[in-house]
Amino acid sequence: MNSIKVKAPATVANLVCGFDVLGMCLHEPYDVMEVTLTNDRQITIKSADGYQLPSDPAKNTAGAPLVEIMRELNTDIGFDVIIHKNIKPGSGIGSSAASAAGAVVAANHLLGNTFDKEDLVRFAMFGEKVASGVKHADNVAPCIYGGITLIRSIFPLDIISIPAPLLYITAVHPQIEVKTSDARQILRKEVLLKDAIRQWGNIAGLVAGLMKNDLSLIGRSLEDVIIEPVRSILIPGFDLLKKNCRQAGALGGGISGSGPSVFMLSADTATAEAVEREMKSIYEGIGLAYHTYITTINTQGVQVL
Amino acid sequence: MNSIKVKAPATVANLVCGFDVLGMCLHEPYDVMEVTLTNDRQITIKSADGYQLPSDPAKNTAGAPLVEIMRELNTDIGFDVIIHKNIKPGSGIGSSAASAAGAVVAANHLLGNTFDKEDLVRFAMFGEKVASGVKHADNVAPCIYGGITLIRSIFPLDIISIPAPLLYITAVHPQIEVKTSDARQILRKEVLLKDAIRQWGNIAGLVAGLMKNDLSLIGRSLEDVIIEPVRSILIPGFDLLKKNCRQAGALGGGISGSGPSVFMLSADTATAEAVEREMKSIYEGIGLAYHTYITTINTQGVQVL
Repeated sequence: MNSIKVKAPATVANLVCGFDVLGMCLHEPYDVMEVTLTNDRQITIKSADGYQLPSDPAKNTAGAPLVEIMRELNTDIGFDVIIHKNIKPGSGIGSSAASAAGAVVAANHLLGNTFDKEDLVRFAMFGEKVASGVKHADNVAPCIYGGITLIRSIFPLDIISIPAPLLYITAVHPQIEVKTSDARQILRKEVLLKDAIRQWGNIAGLVAGLMKNDLSLIGRSLEDVIIEPVRSILIPGFDLLKKNCRQAGALGGGISGSGPSVFMLSADTATAEAVEREMKSIYEGIGLAYHTYITTINTQGVQVL
Repeated sequence: MNSIKVKAPATVANLVCGFDVLGMCLHEPYDVMEVTLTNDRQITIKSADGYQLPSDPAKNTAGAPLVEIMRELNTDIGFDVIIHKNIKPGSGIGSSAASAAGAVVAANHLLGNTFDKEDLVRFAMFGEKVASGVKHADNVAPCIYGGITLIRSIFPLDIISIPAPLLYITAVHPQIEVKTSDARQILRKEVLLKDAIRQWGNIAGLVAGLMKNDLSLIGRSLEDVIIEPVRSILIPGFDLLKKNCRQAGALGGGISGSGPSVFMLSADTATAEAVEREMKSIYEGIGLAYHTYITTINTQGVQVL
């Protein structure tokens, strides 16, 4: 078999108090990628949806990781990739990560699983570098490992899977543009020690809550006193959204990645639906186009079809 | 029974990357306290070792929490306390916390366990306020709960027990004085965001490692990039101590509380003993009086004898 299809799912990075270190894989939305192994030392990337993609594979989020795989193996291989993109670029749920992670998982499968997951994350980060200028793993790691992952360190790479209970995710994508570079630029380079202490108490509580299956502790720990107060000003209606979703029963939530999508975690479907109604009501009120959906944590990550 | 004895153990606060939020209870050393319930609305605190203690119980670390219990109950009770102090004040392993925690656990036992553990921490923090001017719980919480505790928040109080594998603790107390107030004053009020991110990645890794029984992850996560670089300058030989103890097989460690004691965690007795030899060798070399000991995590906390 020298051609396969994979599902490359969306991911939530910067999981509330876990800025830059915690990410979560979603069941939906997901891209579908068809990858064919060739022997011509070439990479072609095509959009199944008619989008123009950079012709240089090294400048493409799916291509750059494959360039690295070819460089590492240095044999007569190549890849043809067709991407069916369902994860809207710029929505803040890991569209570029899905392309990068999907490409490397598919390539690895075609190569007889030569590489382990940590290798794949290392390759996929080259795609993130193309997309945002910075190598980061908090989308590609959960996309490849599935579930909730902690990226304790990037250099050297140290990825830890955090077991989590069944949780429902309600997300809203208000149709505005938030550039990752802008979202990063407005952050202060220094933070108050007392805020940092509060944040590391929260992330410790969140990890303990996820691993203990303690929903109340998860809810109490879903607090970000450092990044969210700054970045949320870029997202219309954010404060009211959070307040109303919590009142509707959500455990908590926050900005997905660098936005503009906002996500909320709930313990059951009924609550996730009530949260979705609050989200709709707020963006109807503001008069801003939006898209909402309900999904669950995807513990598998990129899936070979 | 209106008189009991309790063992009130030493504790390690500021557990490496868990500054202000993570504490750990030790089996040794421990104080022994004898507490008698009376009906005279008086509190007397005496040292069994002949030390002069403040005659006003509200100014004593064991007395102040009892004053609060009496205030809350407002009935005709009182307490006579005799303290056998084995935990050297100023050594950085929770001497004041042991007095406060021992007093409230003993009092609660004599009162038929009227209060829950969270109440007891709340009372015991009044003792810490007497000792250091600040209410903090990262010694009294592990002293009362046992094991490793996360104090996610003080107002409102939110204490989470973190399950941990069997670990051996080697500690050294170099005979110098580090005042908690000095150790706090030298800390910067602002820290770099990138350092804070690294710290919360580490504490998340430490909690996950403890709960997963993953010794390698615990070791990798035992890193403090914020507090230790500043405070360790107050402790002669610290950098070499850490380096040599790691080389001798310790998982890692750091300053206990605000120092001067330094502790190291090991997976087995033989390593804990090798670590102790390194500690001795370094302070022999420096020519500074010191005291070392090896103990384990005390999962019970204050124990009624």
